[in-house]
Amino acid sequence: MQCLKVDLADRSYPIYIGAGILSDEALLQRHIAGRQVCVVTDDTVAPLYLESLLQKLSGYRVTSVVLPTGEAYKNWSTLQQVFDVLLAERHDRRTTLIALGGGVIGDMTGFAAACYQRGVDFIQVPTTLLSQVDSSVGGKTGINHPAGKNMLGAFYQPKAVLIDTDSLRTLPEREVSAGLAEIIKYGLIRDADFLAWLERNMAALRALDASLVTYAIERSCSIKAEVVAADEREGGVRAILNLGHTFGHAIEAHQGYGSWLHGEAVGAGMAMALDLSCRLGWITDAERNRGVALISAAGLPTVPPSGMVAADFERLMSVDKKVLDGQLRLVLLRGMGEAVVTAEFTADALRQCLVGFEQ
Amino acid sequence: MQCLKVDLADRSYPIYIGAGILSDEALLQRHIAGRQVCVVTDDTVAPLYLESLLQKLSGYRVTSVVLPTGEAYKNWSTLQQVFDVLLAERHDRRTTLIALGGGVIGDMTGFAAACYQRGVDFIQVPTTLLSQVDSSVGGKTGINHPAGKNMLGAFYQPKAVLIDTDSLRTLPEREVSAGLAEIIKYGLIRDADFLAWLERNMAALRALDASLVTYAIERSCSIKAEVVAADEREGGVRAILNLGHTFGHAIEAHQGYGSWLHGEAVGAGMAMALDLSCRLGWITDAERNRGVALISAAGLPTVPPSGMVAADFERLMSVDKKVLDGQLRLVLLRGMGEAVVTAEFTADALRQCLVGFEQ
Repeated sequence: MQCLKVDLADRSYPIYIGAGILSDEALLQRHIAGRQVCVVTDDTVAPLYLESLLQKLSGYRVTSVVLPTGEAYKNWSTLQQVFDVLLAERHDRRTTLIALGGGVIGDMTGFAAACYQRGVDFIQVPTTLLSQVDSSVGGKTGINHPAGKNMLGAFYQPKAVLIDTDSLRTLPEREVSAGLAEIIKYGLIRDADFLAWLERNMAALRALDASLVTYAIERSCSIKAEVVAADEREGGVRAILNLGHTFGHAIEAHQGYGSWLHGEAVGAGMAMALDLSCRLGWITDAERNRGVALISAAGLPTVPPSGMVAADFERLMSVDKKVLDGQLRLVLLRGMGEAVVTAEFTADALRQCLVGFEQ
Repeated sequence: MQCLKVDLADRSYPIYIGAGILSDEALLQRHIAGRQVCVVTDDTVAPLYLESLLQKLSGYRVTSVVLPTGEAYKNWSTLQQVFDVLLAERHDRRTTLIALGGGVIGDMTGFAAACYQRGVDFIQVPTTLLSQVDSSVGGKTGINHPAGKNMLGAFYQPKAVLIDTDSLRTLPEREVSAGLAEIIKYGLIRDADFLAWLERNMAALRALDASLVTYAIERSCSIKAEVVAADEREGGVRAILNLGHTFGHAIEAHQGYGSWLHGEAVGAGMAMALDLSCRLGWITDAERNRGVALISAAGLPTVPPSGMVAADFERLMSVDKKVLDGQLRLVLLRGMGEAVVTAEFTADALRQCLVGFEQ
């Protein structure tokens, strides 16, 4: 078992990574302060892992909530189901919420924990590759608004993150690829060596080779933990974690949440960010092509959906959370492994990039 | 103009108190970081003060949202109106929300600021006596759930609190009394001298004598700021600020939010807390009577609504946020000016107190 720490003063917490760690009752219970627990999961994950998790919680007063699966349900009315259950079952301020599932469950459970009685403890048990390397770490929680993804939420840190790599065995191939999108992202923004390692091992990673996957998760979480520790509330550098996400969110919003997987949209979005960085002369054509090839090797799309035009992107990107005082900022690459958050691109360069991707 | 400071490290902020301070453009603008502002108010306060506030904001891109008035609207669907406007008008992360109104507007606007894009700035401009001495200071924000008051929310501090005592001129007498309930509370929990001062000056306070009211607000905010600085997230001592509130919330829930004013429910609730403290032998009969007389002199009820019985209280109080691991805790008085949060009372003593108030 690997253990990393996210270093945030009195909000610091551990990330445990390993095969079978969910069987370790003591590890889980160490992070539960009170006697009440509420497990939040969805109807895809519940049949696979809920019963076994509940067995590790004998001795606690446990409630579980099973939500409908998918990004389309990441909204207030679904969240309300969690609050209704917590109140009906008399959960108090010392309760602990456990998020058992992918990114949607983690984000919603974290936001529920942030809001319930003005804040209760929560633990992340991410079961998808994407949530293991990305959304379970760093304290971003929230829900979607019809006008924009993750527009409502909180920065709210979990008490612990438990990543059991065994849970990847039940993950569909498409979801594995989606997780690899975020793993590639860490290489692109911060670690050229890791990028080269990914290029060498992509086939084995897609086949879920246990030790390689564990290393990829550990390296990803470690980069994320470093960036989050430097800038918890995204006043600056943390925004580099959004490489490809501004384009990606526009794709998700355009297609309707849940149609493209988040990781797929980020895959295409990173290809677009690579392309714009290249148009600005910050990376070479060869570097752009290398990045796009790696995204493609992960089984991800490298172009937006056909029919989505420049004007669609422009409209949808104007509500991005990185817009400040009306000015759009993007995460772009100054070099491979070196991301910046910048408004230093002309509207023309952006438009040419967007038009270039029109099909 | 008086200026106090709430001392919370990087979340510290000033409270300005004075007649006419809302006319001071520079004072307001000093606390607005970006170029966008959204004023949130209700349909009672808007006709009185909105126009004049907007005039102080020329040069900013300003949006205003006018919500229906009252506790009955302190819910998610009303809050949604704020988010809809913020998104429709393209407010970004650097926007500032201004809460112009009483406690409901302050709590909702603060919670909207806490959630919008995971947190934007907000400024409290409380226009009622109750919100000036209580809810605008300390960062408690939130909304009600059908099963309990303030069950959803966040600890989220404003950038500044601007208390213009001139706005009390338009306040109905009943609302003045409601504000005096919280002012009396500060004397009861923390300051016997202030309590004696209130006894001497209650008539003049009800008549809104300008300098006396300013002193009462200042002393109240100062006690609240001290307590909040010692315990921002209510891990311990901060809960003493809830004297009378557990009983009071039960009254509000029983009557339907908005039927009794919050301050009225707290008035009766404090009389009940005084009574239970007396039954436990912690204060004398004379002290209880003196406290009840002061509550009554402020024009507040000192008994719960007729028809509300002990069982109603027991049921409604079991969901209080001060319940921990199933154990109800109450704020009671060990002496006049000395409150404690305690579970050291028998169910019998509580029941006798509740039955004693049945009519």
